[in-house]
Amino acid sequence: MNANALKIVFHGQNAANFRQGFEQLIDPQHTLLDLSDALDQPGEAAHYQSADVIVGIKLDANMPSPQRLRLYHAPSAGTDAINPALLPAGSTLCNCFGHENAIAEYVMAALLQRHVPLAHADADLRQNRWTYWAGRPTALRTELGAQTLGLVGFGHISQTLAARAKAFGMRVHVANRSPIQNLLVDQAFALSDLDAFMATADAIVVTLPLTEQTQGLVGAQAIAAMRADAVLLNVGRGPVIDERALYEALAAKRIAGAIIDTWYQYPTPTQAESAPSQFDFAALDNVLMTPHMSGWTEGTVRRRQETMADNIARLTQGQALRNVIHSPT
Amino acid sequence: MNANALKIVFHGQNAANFRQGFEQLIDPQHTLLDLSDALDQPGEAAHYQSADVIVGIKLDANMPSPQRLRLYHAPSAGTDAINPALLPAGSTLCNCFGHENAIAEYVMAALLQRHVPLAHADADLRQNRWTYWAGRPTALRTELGAQTLGLVGFGHISQTLAARAKAFGMRVHVANRSPIQNLLVDQAFALSDLDAFMATADAIVVTLPLTEQTQGLVGAQAIAAMRADAVLLNVGRGPVIDERALYEALAAKRIAGAIIDTWYQYPTPTQAESAPSQFDFAALDNVLMTPHMSGWTEGTVRRRQETMADNIARLTQGQALRNVIHSPT
Repeated sequence: MNANALKIVFHGQNAANFRQGFEQLIDPQHTLLDLSDALDQPGEAAHYQSADVIVGIKLDANMPSPQRLRLYHAPSAGTDAINPALLPAGSTLCNCFGHENAIAEYVMAALLQRHVPLAHADADLRQNRWTYWAGRPTALRTELGAQTLGLVGFGHISQTLAARAKAFGMRVHVANRSPIQNLLVDQAFALSDLDAFMATADAIVVTLPLTEQTQGLVGAQAIAAMRADAVLLNVGRGPVIDERALYEALAAKRIAGAIIDTWYQYPTPTQAESAPSQFDFAALDNVLMTPHMSGWTEGTVRRRQETMADNIARLTQGQALRNVIHSPT
Repeated sequence: MNANALKIVFHGQNAANFRQGFEQLIDPQHTLLDLSDALDQPGEAAHYQSADVIVGIKLDANMPSPQRLRLYHAPSAGTDAINPALLPAGSTLCNCFGHENAIAEYVMAALLQRHVPLAHADADLRQNRWTYWAGRPTALRTELGAQTLGLVGFGHISQTLAARAKAFGMRVHVANRSPIQNLLVDQAFALSDLDAFMATADAIVVTLPLTEQTQGLVGAQAIAAMRADAVLLNVGRGPVIDERALYEALAAKRIAGAIIDTWYQYPTPTQAESAPSQFDFAALDNVLMTPHMSGWTEGTVRRRQETMADNIARLTQGQALRNVIHSPT
C-alpha cells in the first residue's frame, strides 16, 4: 500500500455536513469512511483507532484512542471538545475558518433591516396603503451608511465585516488587544479604552472567541458607556458579553437593542428545545435573537472543505499545515 | 437691495421636505418663503410670480407665471410635472440625485433578507426552537456573495449599488446603452444583448428612468430569458418592466420572485389608498412590494439640500450650474 494513501474518517453528524463532494477535493488514493458519533456500529471503533486523519469535533477519554493519527481536523473554528492531551504524539490539531463571509452577511442583513422597513411596507402596500411613500415626512428613513460600526476584536470576522461596512460609507472603529493599522479602520482603541470605544459607535459587534481573557469583557460598565440609541451584536461567543448586564440594559431600555446569535445555554442531546439564557430575553421587544446560525452557509462548508483538503495534501507532501491549534509533541 | 439677494420660494408639500435647515446652507442675504401647493393664500401668487428661484416639482399652465425666474430647482430626480415650455427665457431647470446611497441600502437589505431568515429564526428561538442552528444540514443558507448581480442601466444608482455588491464578493454584470469600462463590472452587455444578459444573473436590478426608449424595455422575452431561480427588482420606474409580462411570470412562478418599489399606478389627491397595478400583485407570495420608498432617507434630503444650495451659490457667482435639465433659451 502506498504510504501516502491515508485513511480519513469523518466522525459524527457534524463532520457529515462536510462530507458531500469531499472525495473530489482530495487525491483518489485516500480512503474516506463515515463513522457514527457513538462509534458503536460494527468495525467503527477499529476504523477510528487506525485512522490517519479524523475530521470531527469531539475527542474525549471515553472514546477509542486513534494511535496512528497524524491529523485531527476540526471542520469548525472552535475545538473546545477536543482534548489535545488525548492526541498521539506526532499528530497535529487544526481548525477551520471560512465562516467570515457568512457572518458578515448575517450582520449586514440584521443592521440593514433596522433601517429599511421592508416587511411593514409590504404588508401595508398589499392593503393599498402607501405608508412609506417617498415625499412623506413621516416616512423618512435613517441610513446605515451614516453610522459608525464598532468592532470588538479584529480577526477574520471583523475584517470581512469592515470591508462591507466601508462600502456602505460607514465609519469603522475597532477595540482590540493588539494595535491595529488597517485602511478599513477609522479609529482604533486598546481594550483598556473599551468604555471610550463603546461610546463612539452606533452598532457594536462582538466577534471575539471565548477565552479566560474575553469572558465577561463587555460587562455592565462597558454597556453603560454605550449611547442610548446604539445597538449591541454578538456573533462571537455568548459569555464575552456579561449575561446579566446585557439583559438588564435591554430590559431597562438603556440601549436601543441587541442582535444576539451566540448564547449562554445550548440544547443538549436530551433537551432539544431549551432557552438560550437563564434570563427571559424572549420577553423583550428590543432584541433579535437567532440560534447561533450566523456562520452556517453553503459557502462556509465549501471553504472549510477546501481548507481540510489543502491540509491533507500538505500532509502527504510534507509541507507545513495551516490553522494549527496544537503541534506534534 | 443687493442684486445678489435672491427670493427663493419653496413651493408645496414636497419641497417643504427639503426646507428645514436650508437657511444654514445659503447666504443669509437671500429670502426664503414657503408657499402652499395651491398658491391660494394671500400674497402667494405674487411671491411665486416674482421668485428668482423656485424649489418645486410642478409647473403647469394653470399656475402663475414666474416672470423673473432664474432657476427652477426640482428637489428630485424626476421633472416630469415641470413643463419646460413655461419657464421664462433665461431660466435654468435643474434636478437632484443624492438618492443612490438610500436605494443601494434598500436593494442590499431586500437581497440579503432572501438569504438570512432573521424573522423566522427569531420567532422560533423565542419558542426555544433552534431551527437554524449551525451544524443542522437543513439550516444551511446560501450566500448573496456567491451570486451574480445584473444591473440594467449604469447611472448613479447602479454604480453605488455595484460598489456594495462587490464588497460582498458578488459578480456584477451590466446591460447598458453605452459601453461600460469600470473596475466594478465583471461583464458588460449592450442593450441589444439584453436577453443574453438576463440569463447570466441571479438578481437583476432595473435602475433606469422612464423614457420612450426604456418603456417596456424589460418585456416578456427578456423575463423569459431569466433563470428560474432568479429574482427581478425594480427601483427605476415601473413601466420600464412590462406590467403584464412581470405579473404573468410571477403568477406562473417562472422566476423565483420580484422586489418592486416603482409601480404602474400611484395614489391621487382624491384617492389616497389605491392599488399599484391593474394586476393583483398583492395576491402573489413571491413578490416583495414597497411603495416607491427606496430613495427616501434623511441622507437623501441632506444631499439634495446641498446640491440646491450649491447651485444657488453658483447662480449668484455666475458659475455654471450642475444637474442642468433645461438650459436658458
